[in-house]
Amino acid sequence: VKAEVVAAHRARLDEATHACRTREGWSPFPELPGRYPDAESAQAAGRAAFEARLGRPFHFTPLLPGAAAPEAARHEVSPYTREPLGIAYPMPAIDALFAAAEAALPRWADAAPEQRLDLLMAVVDRLYTDHLFELVYAVMHTAGQSFNMAYAGSGVNALDRAIEALVHARSAMAAVPRQARWERHFGSTRIALDKTWRLVPRGVAVCFACASFPTWNAWPSMMASLATGNAVIVKPHPATVLPMAITVQVFRTLLAEAGFHPDLVTMALDTPEAPLGQALVKHPACAIVDFTGSTRFGQWVERNAHPALAYTETAGLNTVVLHSFPDEAAFDAALRSLATTASLFSAQMCTSPQNLYVAPEGVRVGAHSLPFEAVGERYAAALAELARDPRRAAMILATIQSEATLALVQQMADECARAGRVLLAPGRYVHPEFPQARTCTPLVAALGTEARALYGEERFGPISFVIRAADPLAEATRDVREFGGLTAFLYADDEAVIARAEALYARAGAQLTINLAGPMPLNFAAAYSDYHVTGLNPAGNATLTDLAFVAARFRIVQSRRPAA
Amino acid sequence: VKAEVVAAHRARLDEATHACRTREGWSPFPELPGRYPDAESAQAAGRAAFEARLGRPFHFTPLLPGAAAPEAARHEVSPYTREPLGIAYPMPAIDALFAAAEAALPRWADAAPEQRLDLLMAVVDRLYTDHLFELVYAVMHTAGQSFNMAYAGSGVNALDRAIEALVHARSAMAAVPRQARWERHFGSTRIALDKTWRLVPRGVAVCFACASFPTWNAWPSMMASLATGNAVIVKPHPATVLPMAITVQVFRTLLAEAGFHPDLVTMALDTPEAPLGQALVKHPACAIVDFTGSTRFGQWVERNAHPALAYTETAGLNTVVLHSFPDEAAFDAALRSLATTASLFSAQMCTSPQNLYVAPEGVRVGAHSLPFEAVGERYAAALAELARDPRRAAMILATIQSEATLALVQQMADECARAGRVLLAPGRYVHPEFPQARTCTPLVAALGTEARALYGEERFGPISFVIRAADPLAEATRDVREFGGLTAFLYADDEAVIARAEALYARAGAQLTINLAGPMPLNFAAAYSDYHVTGLNPAGNATLTDLAFVAARFRIVQSRRPAA
Repeated sequence: VKAEVVAAHRARLDEATHACRTREGWSPFPELPGRYPDAESAQAAGRAAFEARLGRPFHFTPLLPGAAAPEAARHEVSPYTREPLGIAYPMPAIDALFAAAEAALPRWADAAPEQRLDLLMAVVDRLYTDHLFELVYAVMHTAGQSFNMAYAGSGVNALDRAIEALVHARSAMAAVPRQARWERHFGSTRIALDKTWRLVPRGVAVCFACASFPTWNAWPSMMASLATGNAVIVKPHPATVLPMAITVQVFRTLLAEAGFHPDLVTMALDTPEAPLGQALVKHPACAIVDFTGSTRFGQWVERNAHPALAYTETAGLNTVVLHSFPDEAAFDAALRSLATTASLFSAQMCTSPQNLYVAPEGVRVGAHSLPFEAVGERYAAALAELARDPRRAAMILATIQSEATLALVQQMADECARAGRVLLAPGRYVHPEFPQARTCTPLVAALGTEARALYGEERFGPISFVIRAADPLAEATRDVREFGGLTAFLYADDEAVIARAEALYARAGAQLTINLAGPMPLNFAAAYSDYHVTGLNPAGNATLTDLAFVAARFRIVQSRRPAA
Repeated sequence: VKAEVVAAHRARLDEATHACRTREGWSPFPELPGRYPDAESAQAAGRAAFEARLGRPFHFTPLLPGAAAPEAARHEVSPYTREPLGIAYPMPAIDALFAAAEAALPRWADAAPEQRLDLLMAVVDRLYTDHLFELVYAVMHTAGQSFNMAYAGSGVNALDRAIEALVHARSAMAAVPRQARWERHFGSTRIALDKTWRLVPRGVAVCFACASFPTWNAWPSMMASLATGNAVIVKPHPATVLPMAITVQVFRTLLAEAGFHPDLVTMALDTPEAPLGQALVKHPACAIVDFTGSTRFGQWVERNAHPALAYTETAGLNTVVLHSFPDEAAFDAALRSLATTASLFSAQMCTSPQNLYVAPEGVRVGAHSLPFEAVGERYAAALAELARDPRRAAMILATIQSEATLALVQQMADECARAGRVLLAPGRYVHPEFPQARTCTPLVAALGTEARALYGEERFGPISFVIRAADPLAEATRDVREFGGLTAFLYADDEAVIARAEALYARAGAQLTINLAGPMPLNFAAAYSDYHVTGLNPAGNATLTDLAFVAARFRIVQSRRPAA
């Protein structure tokens, strides 16, 4: 049976490798929760597993090194119920985590890459088979995502990203031969050397997960480090611990089952009052840092991680340029798609659009021009329509992860009222299932470019700016270059404009989606196909997933001796 | 004819790609100067070309941007004649170089990777066909290498390293598809997107070349940056300008011939009194830094290059562990090889062995033990023997590049006399062809581990320490981990010792050569086969050449739109 399982995992990794080459649509997982095998009972079991975690200590097996009694994670509060999850976690001393990881490393480093890949594919399978719905509920009640988004974005798509990282790690390692016979003449003597190469991991990696979307970046980062032989210490956000604790436990279980030391994967935990981030990054044993989170700490990591490698995804402002449409129907369809995408998880995604750039003369729709003011009003109306029905709002907007985001939305509304015109004031909708849920309906404001200080950074949450700009494309791409940006969206019924946009966004380094409408979220980034983050602007330096994301996580050491 | 030339270059790159896979011995170039086509007249023509450069301004065609009248490079003095070369070079303002490079970039960035590779293979061919011996003399009279080493190490081997970088750049770029059709269902709607990917260069790279071995690192670095679409500003050491100026001119000529802007490759020049290094690295347009040189500035680069990428090769102490030999003949052969290798170019190579570790009980030779003292004395005698014959010394030791190195050797001799025992005092030999040449015969000293402050760093120049260590392998690898090291050499007639050494050096990150004797220099690093620098210790972070050396020099930007 075991050999069959391994063979199935290898076949799946081969399929994923093929998908990364063709970049056509592929996933081994059903996209919709209803298509999960035996969905209803799996969901019920996952919910029960999640609920069984609440109000008690989370016990890692085996115990984490250096951990005293578990401490309550006071900042882990459900955005749906507004009640603390009440879970206590061990908070080990970080020296103990690094020491344990280093002690566990040599056997893992010496294992054949295929053996590590087999085990990590088994982790993917275990997360999917035994923990997916438990994770879905854990993500809902920490990050605040909707059930559907937690299943797709934080579940199966994140698993796809994890497999994709394994594909690239395998490819980078396969590029290095393990042995060779080398021959050459020196004078009249023929020298023959037998050479062998070892792939040596960097050491201990630290993986920071963010509060609103923990698994999607953390899983591929962990896989990239582990596949190449490193150990990983996970540092979740104090508000979103449970999804990563479950993750860490699954890795530990499978490592132990395979005879490796479970301390290859551990978890450090801190509080907002006593953050551990800098100490983890500057620890002498820290060799790799993966960071997803705030621009501020991300840039500190990039500047200070040395000699550790730093892979970051921080934040940026995602831009929309509205130029022209063939007809009213196309304009309406685009606005609906934009409104839905900007509302998804209340724009708490690194790919959510924020800034819409429109020329002072407005947008061309068919033979007519729609004035700047009317464009903004129509967009605000589309957003308002989405938020009107609580059932729909619950599915799309979901909840607000942090109290600070609510405060920011209100502050932005006040500032926009002074600097421009508020087209849609933020409010609250009552979640049909969780009346206490922390919710917020979108703010939309119309601004001129003189208000760049307002819109010239990521404003986390359901906030959209409609910006009057003489040259919308130039302005949008300038903002991306300067402030960062991951995604970009263009609507233009003019191939010359499209070509110019492709050139300008290529230079600015944002992934561009053109003239898309319909049921696909505009910011959907498909594993095996869409590259995520370019590294060409301040929104992060690491791409999910290219060779650069994996190739430096291991090094090559050589031994050579005269051939026998 | 042109198509044939391109086809020949592509065939050569394919052969090189194959060699990088098999890592067997291969080179398109003859290793010995005598085997160069029509060697005698080529050498004479190269010498004449070199001599025609002396005592006059070096004119780049077209002129470098932002350059005023050329200024004499006062620090460019032949280590052979001790006379200034008298060449004046333009010293452009670095803002002008960056601006010109940025202006030249877009067309180069937009060119197909194959077109860039064709052109860069033509540069390799032009350097080899039209400038090799001119470069050989330029290296001799700046770096101070022997004619043979300048031909091999700074000539054909460096060209091999350049091709090898192109192989890896091609491979990393080929891993990214340029277009795809992606399809997936969202609900009942099938979404089909046409996706295109552009490889976008980082921008302007700065390549620092070192004084003693400029081309071997700079050529592959330049190739890696240019192949992936970047521009390069070369910053030679003020004492070794000419080899890089000729290099830059060849790139400029071929770029212009192909219709690209020559300012894609330019040269910045400074003086020791007014160094430009920090300003180049911290320039807002600097996107990549390749640095070969001092540990001190290299570590500054690694810490401060952000947001630019940094690729460094600095320095380390290269270790030799003498454990056991099957018989006297093997011991003698090893000592001769070690003495030759440690004398090559007076140990002014980053791969030169420096520290020999011997147990207090000495070395086992056959059934007997040779005491620690006797090992040191025999090694010193082998070095003295090499330096005794000026003709041989000229071929092997060549000259000392810098006056500072002479001073260091004397200072080390004084300190070693106090801290331990000088086994061979440094002196001077008279070069048969250049009686004024700056020469130095090796210093050998025996020390205990209490003198770690003396031997615990690279001491640049003909300096060897024989170190009494209770556990030579543990001590040597500890020193490598702490202070850096590129190469390592082990002599052991015991497979258990060899296995332990391989494990310890793999962890320390030095490339290990075991039980080698004979005519091949022990530190010879063959392109297409030997990986150079692991990045696992402080001796540098970049490997010639692995995927990590090239994969992050370009980024991937995507555009997607509904399929027609």
